[in-house]
Parts: sequence; structure tokens; C-alpha cells
Amino acid sequence: MKDQLSVGERLATGNPGEDIFAFAAEIYPICRSITGNGVRKTLRAIGMHIDLKIHEVPTGTEVFDWTIPREWNIRDAYIKNERGEKILDFAHSNLHVMSYSLPVRKRISLAELKQHVYTLPDQPDRIPYRTSYYAENWAFCMPHRLFEGLRDETYEVVIDSTLEDGYLTYGEYLHQGESEDEFLLSAHVCHPSLANDNCSGVALLTHLAKRMAGLQTRYTYRFLFAPGTIGAITWLARNEDRCQRIKHGLVVSMVGDGGGPTYKKSRRGHSEIDRAVVHAMHHSGLAPTILEFSPYGYDERQYCSPGFNLPVGLFQRSKFGEIPEYHTSGDNLEFIAPDHLSQSYGLIAETIDIVENNEVYCNTMPKCEPQLGRRGLYGPVGGDKGAAAANMAMLWILNLSDGMHSLLDIAERGNLPFSVIRDTARQLYRSGLLRPVFAANQNR
Amino acid sequence: MKDQLSVGERLATGNPGEDIFAFAAEIYPICRSITGNGVRKTLRAIGMHIDLKIHEVPTGTEVFDWTIPREWNIRDAYIKNERGEKILDFAHSNLHVMSYSLPVRKRISLAELKQHVYTLPDQPDRIPYRTSYYAENWAFCMPHRLFEGLRDETYEVVIDSTLEDGYLTYGEYLHQGESEDEFLLSAHVCHPSLANDNCSGVALLTHLAKRMAGLQTRYTYRFLFAPGTIGAITWLARNEDRCQRIKHGLVVSMVGDGGGPTYKKSRRGHSEIDRAVVHAMHHSGLAPTILEFSPYGYDERQYCSPGFNLPVGLFQRSKFGEIPEYHTSGDNLEFIAPDHLSQSYGLIAETIDIVENNEVYCNTMPKCEPQLGRRGLYGPVGGDKGAAAANMAMLWILNLSDGMHSLLDIAERGNLPFSVIRDTARQLYRSGLLRPVFAANQNR
Amino acid sequence: MKDQLSVGERLATGNPGEDIFAFAAEIYPICRSITGNGVRKTLRAIGMHIDLKIHEVPTGTEVFDWTIPREWNIRDAYIKNERGEKILDFAHSNLHVMSYSLPVRKRISLAELKQHVYTLPDQPDRIPYRTSYYAENWAFCMPHRLFEGLRDETYEVVIDSTLEDGYLTYGEYLHQGESEDEFLLSAHVCHPSLANDNCSGVALLTHLAKRMAGLQTRYTYRFLFAPGTIGAITWLARNEDRCQRIKHGLVVSMVGDGGGPTYKKSRRGHSEIDRAVVHAMHHSGLAPTILEFSPYGYDERQYCSPGFNLPVGLFQRSKFGEIPEYHTSGDNLEFIAPDHLSQSYGLIAETIDIVENNEVYCNTMPKCEPQLGRRGLYGPVGGDKGAAAANMAMLWILNLSDGMHSLLDIAERGNLPFSVIRDTARQLYRSGLLRPVFAANQNR
Repeated sequence: MKDQLSVGERLATGNPGEDIFAFAAEIYPICRSITGNGVRKTLRAIGMHIDLKIHEVPTGTEVFDWTIPREWNIRDAYIKNERGEKILDFAHSNLHVMSYSLPVRKRISLAELKQHVYTLPDQPDRIPYRTSYYAENWAFCMPHRLFEGLRDETYEVVIDSTLEDGYLTYGEYLHQGESEDEFLLSAHVCHPSLANDNCSGVALLTHLAKRMAGLQTRYTYRFLFAPGTIGAITWLARNEDRCQRIKHGLVVSMVGDGGGPTYKKSRRGHSEIDRAVVHAMHHSGLAPTILEFSPYGYDERQYCSPGFNLPVGLFQRSKFGEIPEYHTSGDNLEFIAPDHLSQSYGLIAETIDIVENNEVYCNTMPKCEPQLGRRGLYGPVGGDKGAAAANMAMLWILNLSDGMHSLLDIAERGNLPFSVIRDTARQLYRSGLLRPVFAANQNR
Repeated sequence: MKDQLSVGERLATGNPGEDIFAFAAEIYPICRSITGNGVRKTLRAIGMHIDLKIHEVPTGTEVFDWTIPREWNIRDAYIKNERGEKILDFAHSNLHVMSYSLPVRKRISLAELKQHVYTLPDQPDRIPYRTSYYAENWAFCMPHRLFEGLRDETYEVVIDSTLEDGYLTYGEYLHQGESEDEFLLSAHVCHPSLANDNCSGVALLTHLAKRMAGLQTRYTYRFLFAPGTIGAITWLARNEDRCQRIKHGLVVSMVGDGGGPTYKKSRRGHSEIDRAVVHAMHHSGLAPTILEFSPYGYDERQYCSPGFNLPVGLFQRSKFGEIPEYHTSGDNLEFIAPDHLSQSYGLIAETIDIVENNEVYCNTMPKCEPQLGRRGLYGPVGGDKGAAAANMAMLWILNLSDGMHSLLDIAERGNLPFSVIRDTARQLYRSGLLRPVFAANQNR
Repeated sequence: MKDQLSVGERLATGNPGEDIFAFAAEIYPICRSITGNGVRKTLRAIGMHIDLKIHEVPTGTEVFDWTIPREWNIRDAYIKNERGEKILDFAHSNLHVMSYSLPVRKRISLAELKQHVYTLPDQPDRIPYRTSYYAENWAFCMPHRLFEGLRDETYEVVIDSTLEDGYLTYGEYLHQGESEDEFLLSAHVCHPSLANDNCSGVALLTHLAKRMAGLQTRYTYRFLFAPGTIGAITWLARNEDRCQRIKHGLVVSMVGDGGGPTYKKSRRGHSEIDRAVVHAMHHSGLAPTILEFSPYGYDERQYCSPGFNLPVGLFQRSKFGEIPEYHTSGDNLEFIAPDHLSQSYGLIAETIDIVENNEVYCNTMPKCEPQLGRRGLYGPVGGDKGAAAANMAMLWILNLSDGMHSLLDIAERGNLPFSVIRDTARQLYRSGLLRPVFAANQNR
């Protein structure tokens, strides 16, 4: 009730797609993994925009059932044929080396090489993305077409990597709100050159955090940029006592393609964040897909593990795993677009707006309808069937504001956009017809 | 269990459509508004059939957020062109003058006249119905075709109306039942010559009240004939302490056309009246439309305001606002028909029958089935698949009469007409296989 | 967790259809009724396979609202025409005589005969099955084609039956499990030569009981072979105090035809047996029909009467009454088949397996996911979208094992076959990632 424009409206002004795309493009070439300098470089880039706090957790640290692994870095890698020609070069694509590959430098037969190669036979021109974080091994990833053309000769294989004690690195940014209750926004930063998965999510959240800087919010917003799985687990292990402050959360990944939007609900299934995203998507004019929780996916797997069971959902465009570009070199900068990033950003801004403004009011004139006409809230001429229809938001709010229905409840019941309900409730509040019951930031 | 015929059956004998139509036609010409002599004349006509109690509430009386307005009456109105020809005459249709128009008598230009005219461009031969109860103004309503033909000349406009301190008038009729618990039947009496909206509802309820006169009922039936909105608000304000006696209620309007039937549920959504009407409609052989509650409509808006939240639904044929005749001169006596009025009456009688007879029983032989055959309740020859099917009502009642299911619950669960369940339960009661648990007139 | 193979797997090995069919064929010719030597002969045949305990309850014994009737036996019956030709002979089909027909031996006219004949005009070549247990009468059942050809002459009608004080006979077999909680399996043994209804059910349960003999089970299994209606009522009356031990139950009838499978839920509607059968049927590859409870059917009518309300459903192939062969001579050995009996048996074994193994576990590492890879439970290479999909059962169990979800809950939620969830839970238990909360044999 403080501002003329709501938080969501302030966040959503302008067309942020180009800025988000530019930052995604900036971090796209970096070779990231779950540890190492690629993550550090990415976090430094984010830190150019927001006051990011970097955390370094040493190898060997125990985090619940897991142990921080050794740090992996890579400088170069290639395969040369007998004529000394580089037939595969890490410099061309950091997907060419399986993440966490051990260092190797030797001459091997084609037969042996084939045991260390991944391809995608059904997408013969694309390089697959593969990892082996916890099993010591090495491999190259290449287009199947290249693989099929390999001659039976001796190859020189070089992976100039290191796997040594070091650190796991993640970054946090906190936007302090009026309440200690938190809204968690989490993006994984462990994938190498995959534009949608997850340069898009990292760039979107960086832009959102930057835009939020000057705004007064009810909730405190925590932005977490961490490696997938082990990063989320590390954060949870180090912040176990603060987790119950998280009232809403979104894992944000793959938000730059033109599919979806897709929302996978939190394990709770009907928490306020679930309802807010579903509402925003249903009134977006797009064709959203709403999925029930399942235990496979991104870091919501950790946030929604039974010992935490946090109200955290997964926000995406196309659903992971259901598009051919997923985890291949097809997930490049041509696969994402500023317009799609703008749409995704807008939906998240709308979601934030809903939880920020989801008040519960009491109608101060609960017995019969108040006379709206003498307050200038109702057209003077009756009988026209269009007249009252225009007042439906007002009628719904007055009818359901009995202290038991939030504005989101009312928007859902009346099938009206939350923004209309929000603005109409302000108008009724100013007219003295509503009084707030309590802020809707309890964990309902 | 007292009568051979149930209350609903007694109410429904004969074919009441012609009588209801005749009374609707009798009151159709009267020019009603929310106050004034038109309402009084209508209530006097009702009073020829039932012992109606008339209430007069003075101008200025405060009723919740509202104030009883001044009383409006009209004697005559017309528009004359320069040649002295009446181009519009109130005597031909009382829809020609916007309700609550201030008195006017002057010569004006076409341009000025046009600012005081309502038409329906998409129904050019019909007169719209318009009101301006709380904003002082005057206007004529006319067919768009007439409006388009108006020449650019000077017009004499006359509205011979008065707007003075007086009264708001409404009528009540009480049919006393065994219980103080009430069934409210409410019809608005404020619309001028609109046959379906609501001469039909007024006439149907008048007939129902008259037919009910000799009958012994469980519930007390309150028939309310009052102006829309302000009349219902006035009644609620003056009867606030008695409202919680209302266990069931129906607003009855637009019951003479061939559409629907349509039922809009009470705000509670699953109260006994909601279930009773839905059941009656589903077994009617018609194609009913069942709507969830919404805060726009007729006087259920007031009864279902959050401070009252009474179990009152809206009974209609076509849904208001969804037919072209709505609030136009097309809503005339040709638009309603005795057959439709009979159907509507029958559905309301059936609804009354359900709540009157919705007992809860206990099976006196709850362990295994009782032997129906030796009581003459079951055919002697087994094996035929048709045999037991005929006994489904008996089997359902015995199986579900555990003190937790009413007869309506059982009718719904077994998908059988309530009347079959009611009669079969009587038979089982007479055979000693059922004992009543309590009368079903609690507010379930 | 005791066996390598689960109870259901042990029960289901081999292809039992031929054995079940052979036993159904063995008892098919016997003329059964609700009392008499046919029932005794059938129970003796069952007793050749399992240690069946036979109960004899005297005529006149009161069982709830019923009384054990006199015992009926029949030796012979025929109709002879004037030329002494037997035009109908009980020796050809025991359906030719209405069950419980009084003895008769006289010469009568065609007109009188016609008052004692049942036929099926719409299936003119089949003999109907008819009974008259509680109304004294006699009748013949014959093909309508034969009936139509009867000449107007004098007939000699002979029914050499007796209706005298005696006993009602039923048999019980108990497989003792670890718990006193019982699983009731009930088949009616009162129908004469009807192969599907219910030689099939009797034979299937006999085989199941025999196969179960050597197995260690959690539940105690009670097999009841009793006449329909009066037999179940008698058992309930004599075992009233033990009924609440029944945690699950199935009435098994008509399990040899190729229709369905059909399951009619218990009156409770969502008890564990209901969910187990529905789950088994949905994962069977067949096209099951799941019906809500209704009070017409087989002995579940008694088990689900409101005074008992036991969790007992009805397991069938085609739904009774919905096939033309029902209660006619068309229900013969050609109507049932070993393959269908095998399928039905398999579904019941799978149902037993579910309730036997429906444990509730707690994830011992509830905070974040445990590291499955280092326990050899997860593939070493990431990135491939097929990899994790193969682990869905593991992920679902870990995510939902919070002490509030049984394995059946998890199988339903993850839409995975119970057997996959059961085996995966064992694997996780052996890895120390699950601990049992309590045996799932409470009445949930």
C-alpha cells in the first residue's frame, strides 16, 4: 500500500530481454564444472552487477551424506591422428571433454579410444554433455558423424586437467526486505557452454537482483548461484538453521527457449509459491504446463528432500530432458532469445508481485453490499448488463474478504488476474471498505 | 410420515402454469420501481391471493450502509416534435422512461435530447430498461430505429414524475410450520413491465404460497416480495436477529422462459438447499446448468454477503444477462409461457419436498441384510438379473442408513430420484427396518 | 524382507490355469443349492486339496434376521408327454429344476404346466437358472424353443426332491500368518452347474490356499466356501467377535471368463484392499473396470452391511448380470478358460503381495539426497537424460519415505508397479538408507 506502483510493476518495467541475453552470452564461453576456476570466473562476472558474496568450501568438507570433492580444472585437450592433425580440440567446445576427466596424455588404438568416447547417434552433428564427478575416468564427447569417420590408427589423446584438493565455490546475494522471511531464487552454475541450461537462468536472476536493488520489499530475497546438487547440498548443510525462514522459492533454469512455460510444483504441492506461479502462468496468455512434484530434476530435489520439504518449485520454459537440444551442443546462443528471456522474467516478476501483495482483508461492511455508488465506485445507471460485469473484482473482494481468503484466493475464485484484484483492493482500502487482517507472509 | 402424499406431491398436483401466467399477465402492465405506487399496487394484487403483510419504511431510514431513498412516482411522460406529434408516449410502455427520472418539462434541441436517450443499437426495435436510483438525472429509452429517425428540430420533453419523501414498500407472507426454522422464498418486485423479470417469479411464489396454505409443513416458509437490492437490504436490516433461522432459501426470478433451468449455488456452495435443487434439476429430464456462486446477480448478493452468508441460491430458467430479451421490451408476455411456469413451479415443489423429507434413519437390522422376502419386500424367485435391480432403492437405504447419511445423501449416492428413496424409506419404516435418528432440518 | 522372492512371487510362479480349470470341471456337474448334499460333495472335493473344516448348522438356527432353512435335496426330475417320452430330464442339466422346488408327481394340463416353467425368450436355446429358497413352489426351467413347441396335451411332471430339517453346510480353511489380522477370501458354493459362477471362484481359491500352504505370511488368510447370502450371514453370525480382525477381504466369483477384470470397491471405498486391487489391475496390461460400492452383488453385501462395514471388495472378470451367459446354461465349461483363470489368479496373488509388503519406511538420510553413487546405486556418468529416469523408483522412495507414506502410496504417486517399489525398497533397506516405521498391517 506504500507505492503507487507495486513491486512487481516496478520490476517489470522496460524490456529486459536484451540485457539478460547479453549477460548470458558473456558467460556462455566459460568452461564451468561443479568446482574450479570456471565457476569462480562466472561468479566474478555476476559480481560486476550485484554485491555477490563468494563462499569457498574446502575439499573434504562433509555436507550431510556427501563430501566436497577435489577441485577440477582444465587448460587444454585434444585428439591427434597419426598425421598430427587435431581431429578434436577443447578450444572449439568445452563440451568435448567429459567434466571431471582425469589428466591423460598417451597414444592409444582406435579400439581403446572408442571406450572413452560419448556420442549421440540420433543427433549425429551434436556433441553430448557428459560428467563423471564421483567415478574417476576420462572421456571425450564428439559428434557421432566424426566418430563414425575415425580410421583404425593410433591416436594421441591429451587432457591437460588437474584434480586436486581445492574448494567448491558458490555465490550469494541478499536483498533485505522488511521481514526476515525469505524468498529463495536459485540457479545452478556448474554447466559449461550450455546457453539455456543454465546461462539463461544465471543471467535472469542476476538481472532481477540488480533491478530489485532500490526496491522496498516485504520479503528478503536470497539469490543463490551454486553448482547443481553438491552446491545446493552444501548451502543447505551450512544454513540448516535458517532454512525455515524460506517461505517461497524457485529454482530457475532453462528460461531462454521458446517452449513452455513449465512449472513443477514443490513437494508440498499447494504452497503459496505453487499457487502464485500457476496463477501468473495461467493469466500470461501463454500455454503453460503445470507438473506435479517429482523427485527428478534440478536443485528442488534437495530443497524438497523430506528432511527440508521447503516450498520451492522449478521454473522453466521447455521441460528439461524433453527437447533434443538438452545437454548437447545444440543448447547454444541461437537456442535462446531475448523475447523469451523477457517473458520468463516477467512471469517471475509477476510471481514476486503476488506473494508481496497477497494480503488478507476484512470487509468493513460485511452485512449486505456497501453502497458503492455514493463512493464513486459504481456506475450511476443500472439495467445495462455490461455495467456490473466491470465491477466483478470489487464484488468478489467484498464478498470473500471475511478474513479467511487472501487476495490470491479471491483472484483464483473469481478467475481474474491478480493485478486487477490487487489494484481494486487498494481502491477499496482507500475507500475504507477493507481493513487488513494480517500480512499474508505466513507459511500457508 | 404423516401423510400419504408428501408435501411436494400435494403442492405439485394439477397444472398450475395457466394460473401463474394469468397472474403474471395481471401485474405485467404496472409501472414498478424500487419505491412508489407501482409496488403498492402489485402487493395489493398479491394480497388478493394470500394474507400479505405490507411494510412501509420511511425515506431517510438507514439500513446498514444504505439510506431509504425518496419515493418516486410517475403519471405521464412523452416527447413531442415541432408538429406536436407525440413521437414517444409513456402510456405505450413504461420502459420509455428511465426509472427515477426527475420531472422535466421543456423544449430542447435534438443535440440535448440525445444526451438523455438510451437505445440498443444491436436490437434496434426494442426499448431498453434503465434506472438511475441514486444519481439524479432523467432520460428516455427508445428503440434505436426511432432514435435514428429523429430530425434536427426542437422537441418538447415531459416527464410528469415526483421524487419526494415517502416510503419503501415490501410485503411478507409467513406459512407457519412445525419448526421455527425457515425456508425463505424471495422475489423482487421493482421492475416495470418485464414479464419474465420478474412478473413470473412474483406470480409463481404467490401461487406457491396460496397452494401451501392448507398444508402441514416441517419448515416455516417466508415469502418476501420486495424491491431488488434496497428491499432485501431493508428486510435484512430489520430482521437481523432472525436471519439465522433461515436454513434454506431461494431467490426466484425469470422463471417463465424456456431456457435452463439454471441454479446458482449459495456462497456456501454445498448447503442442503444447493444439493436439493441440484438433485431436483438433475432428475427433471431437463438440461440444467449449475453455477457456482458469484457475487453478481439478484438478491442472493445480499443474503450471501459475508456478514450473513445465508444458504440462499438463485433459481432461474435462462441465466440473467445471457439472453437478448434481458432488460428490454422483448421481455414481454409472449416471452413467457404457462408450460415453462409449470416446470419451474414443479422444480421448486420438488426442492421443498426434498428438504421437508430429508430424514436420517438408522437401519434397525444393521448386521447383514434383513430378510426382505418374508416381509413381502422382495420377489420370491431368485436368479433373474432384473429382480434385484428393482430393489436398489431398498438396498441403498438399508446399506447407508447408519445415522450418518440423510435420504438425500442416499439418493445422490444411488443416483435415484429422491421421491423413490422417500417412498421406499416410508415402506421400510412401516416394516420396522428403519428408525429415525433426527429430523434433517439442522443446518448441515 | 525375509525371502528373496516375495510372497506374491512365490504364489505366482508357474501357470496355474490348467489346474484350476481341471478342478472347476470336476465340481461343475454337481447339483448344488444353499443346502444339501451337493454342497457337501463340493466341500469334500475341496477337502482333497486343503485341510478344510466343515461346519454343519441345523435347520431353524437363527442367524441375525434369518433362519437356517430346511435342507433341500433332489434325486431326479423329468417331464413326460402323453407318449411317455421324457421331454425334459434333470439328468441332462441340473438347471432344469428351480432350486428348492417342492416334490411333485402328477399329471397336469399344458396350461397348468406353463405356470411352472421359466424360459429366456431372448436366448431361446438356453436354460435359465432360477431359485425359490424362501417361497414354497416348484418349477421347471427350459429353453424357450422347447417351451414354444409344447403341444396341448397332458404331461407327467416329476420332481423327486426332499425339503426336510437338516443342515446348512460350509467350509473354512485357515492359513495361519504371523499376525492375527486376517485376509478373508470368500467364494459362494450354492450354484449348480454354472462354470464361471462359481466353479471358477471355488477352484481358484482352492488352488491359492493349496499353494499358500508352505509360505510364511504376515497376515492370516481365511478361505470361506459357503452358500451365497445365507452362508455368509451364518458365518458372520457365528464369528461376530472375530470380524474386526479382517483387515482385507475379497469375494471371488466369476473369474474364468475373458471379460474385465472388474473390481467393485468395498463400502469404505478407499481401504487398503481397494487400493491394492486397483493398483494391481492398473498395472496388469488389461483394461480393468473399477466400480464404486453398490449394495447389490454377491456376499460383499453382507460383509459391507452397515453393522460390519468390513473392507471387503468383489473381484470378478465380467461384471455379474452384464453378460448374456449370466445365470443360464451358457455359463458352462466352454465359457471359462485356463488362461483367464491364470490371469485372475495372478491378479489376486499380486494383490496379496501388495498388502503383505506394504511397509512404511523412514529415509535415514532425509536431509538432501543421499549420495547413491558411492553406494553403487547410481550410474557413474551424468548428463544422459535416460540415466536418472532408471532411478525413479529409488528417488520416489527416498523422497516420500517420511513415515507418512506406505510403499503403496509411493507406487501410486510415482505411477510405478508395486513390485518395482518393493524390490527397490529392499535394496535401499539393505544399503541402510531406509528403516521400517511399522508394519503396514494396521487398518489404514
